[in-house]
Amino acid sequence: MNTWPDTRLCDLLGIALPLIQAPMAGPNDHALAAAAASAGALGSLPCAMLSAEQIRAEVARFRELAPGRPLNLNFFCHRSPAPDATRDAAWRAALKPFYLELGLDPDMPLPAATRRPFDAESCALVEQLRPEVLSFHFGLPEPALLARVKATGAPVLSSATTVDEARWLAAQGCDAIIAQGVEAGGHRGLFLGDDISTQPGTFALLPQIVDAVKEIPVIAAGGIADGRGMAAALTLGAAGVQIGTAYLLAPECKTPAVHRAALQSAAAEHTALTNLFSGRPARGIVNRLMRELGPLSALAPAFPQASAALAPLRAAAEARGSADFTPLWAGQAAPLARAQPAAETTRRIAAEALRCLGQ
Amino acid sequence: MNTWPDTRLCDLLGIALPLIQAPMAGPNDHALAAAAASAGALGSLPCAMLSAEQIRAEVARFRELAPGRPLNLNFFCHRSPAPDATRDAAWRAALKPFYLELGLDPDMPLPAATRRPFDAESCALVEQLRPEVLSFHFGLPEPALLARVKATGAPVLSSATTVDEARWLAAQGCDAIIAQGVEAGGHRGLFLGDDISTQPGTFALLPQIVDAVKEIPVIAAGGIADGRGMAAALTLGAAGVQIGTAYLLAPECKTPAVHRAALQSAAAEHTALTNLFSGRPARGIVNRLMRELGPLSALAPAFPQASAALAPLRAAAEARGSADFTPLWAGQAAPLARAQPAAETTRRIAAEALRCLGQ
Repeated sequence: MNTWPDTRLCDLLGIALPLIQAPMAGPNDHALAAAAASAGALGSLPCAMLSAEQIRAEVARFRELAPGRPLNLNFFCHRSPAPDATRDAAWRAALKPFYLELGLDPDMPLPAATRRPFDAESCALVEQLRPEVLSFHFGLPEPALLARVKATGAPVLSSATTVDEARWLAAQGCDAIIAQGVEAGGHRGLFLGDDISTQPGTFALLPQIVDAVKEIPVIAAGGIADGRGMAAALTLGAAGVQIGTAYLLAPECKTPAVHRAALQSAAAEHTALTNLFSGRPARGIVNRLMRELGPLSALAPAFPQASAALAPLRAAAEARGSADFTPLWAGQAAPLARAQPAAETTRRIAAEALRCLGQ
Repeated sequence: MNTWPDTRLCDLLGIALPLIQAPMAGPNDHALAAAAASAGALGSLPCAMLSAEQIRAEVARFRELAPGRPLNLNFFCHRSPAPDATRDAAWRAALKPFYLELGLDPDMPLPAATRRPFDAESCALVEQLRPEVLSFHFGLPEPALLARVKATGAPVLSSATTVDEARWLAAQGCDAIIAQGVEAGGHRGLFLGDDISTQPGTFALLPQIVDAVKEIPVIAAGGIADGRGMAAALTLGAAGVQIGTAYLLAPECKTPAVHRAALQSAAAEHTALTNLFSGRPARGIVNRLMRELGPLSALAPAFPQASAALAPLRAAAEARGSADFTPLWAGQAAPLARAQPAAETTRRIAAEALRCLGQ
């Protein structure tokens, strides 16, 4: 495929199309990654909510379904917060009326929050499993671990939500930088500071990062869900794109039924950044919890602890067909997503992008 | 110029380049409009802060400087708020420490807030002055006045910040719709509802509006400050672009010195939406007032009343070379602006866009 204006990303990642299927912790297992990879994109497996055993099994299934295709393993690089019983208790108190409404015991024991940061154990697993690509969110692993990851030969990617973060990632030796515009669904990758009021949109962020890290390929993410968006991103200087929301309606994606329904309703036009579901700002379709507590609340415990007390509410509500307590992660281009197999989505977006680029 | 992929906007507005110099109330008088127009863009004159006499004089000067070029008169369509002495007093109390710090009398009489909505007087003026194009912000004039405006034969433009607003404007007979992404500098045009947490970025908003109002040309605004951005917007389906921030450093723009300095500093990388300066959310470079009160505050009186109590602070601080109380309106692409005459900026952006489009 020499029709792409910039082949740096295809060369670096060993893919036919300069398109990364975005890791989406939760609904995205080997099936989505393999389907996207089979069509020429880079398939991604989000690992933050999986045990080492689960990661091993998922990688094995990907290898069976997409033999010879590169795989991206994605990890989070947050610091686990110190336990804070006072804050946890205030959060449970704030959620108590919802527990009572759903007939749940507000003092029930809670499952542990499931998002784990990349650590020595993850690093050993990576050394063993040898994924072709590694991507990180919320910064990068600590230097010693990063050195070990890089020693595997896999290109290392991470997300920048500001020009400062892109410069920092470039200085640490990132091989490609994901410019995550504020349109993007799911967690904001911000890691230098925590001010979301100044987070730029893709249109402004992308060309500024391209200018700032000239030697390094930049991948555009946020607001891109069809070929027009992919072509526009390449026009702005991106070497490729990372696309998530456009895959949420694929049959290979384990998107919960209530989430799928929201994506296919008029509600999908209204997303907001919220810290309620995990403790860190992430973009999702506005639902009851966001409306009633406000999307950003000082009550939510530190990431990822906020999720613990919501898990029982979410399970009980989803069992009744309600999305009231489900994080409906979605980017602002959600209405452009189509219910289509992931390989078809991949091929459609790439073909439309080439058409828009006049290739 | 038949090299543009879409000529609808050039045909509709009588311009050579599908580029509108964005109206920027404050620094933007006839000089900027004429300079941009002379290079083939649509020059705009913001009228919300001008008296009828001033508008008449500005139009006359534009006609002298840019004979035969079309002119866009821009008006605001907000409703003037009912007087609210309690809220005004609370606002003055919040600002009192700053008054004292600057040696100002916190109880000094205040000038009236200067932003006026489009009314019967403005309409009569339009009928007399016959601008070639009319653009509105915060919706449209009331139906009877809109009918009179349309009867002059001038195309009518307005800003949509959501797909719903675009559909509404199309239904009212707008001739072209400005898709204002959240990256844009200055006031958000939102008029159906007031929830800024769900305002989309240009990448997501533009193609969705293009799809929603198929018959009507869509103009992209927000985050576009160079030719790459213009080309990307056209790739996403825009018929043209509206660009403001890229002109703020032009010698023809009456940008205050402290504002100009902020635009040329690292501070320009950090803009946020704030309601402090006018009462409505608008994007500007983060400065002291925004940091100390928080960029969005319930204390700010309704638009445009918040500006009244800030005027003395702003004047006193600017006299000392400080931007602490100046609204430093700027879009998120502010670092891409260059200190260059407006005609050169216009030609550079258009030529670079054509190059990016492979024309």
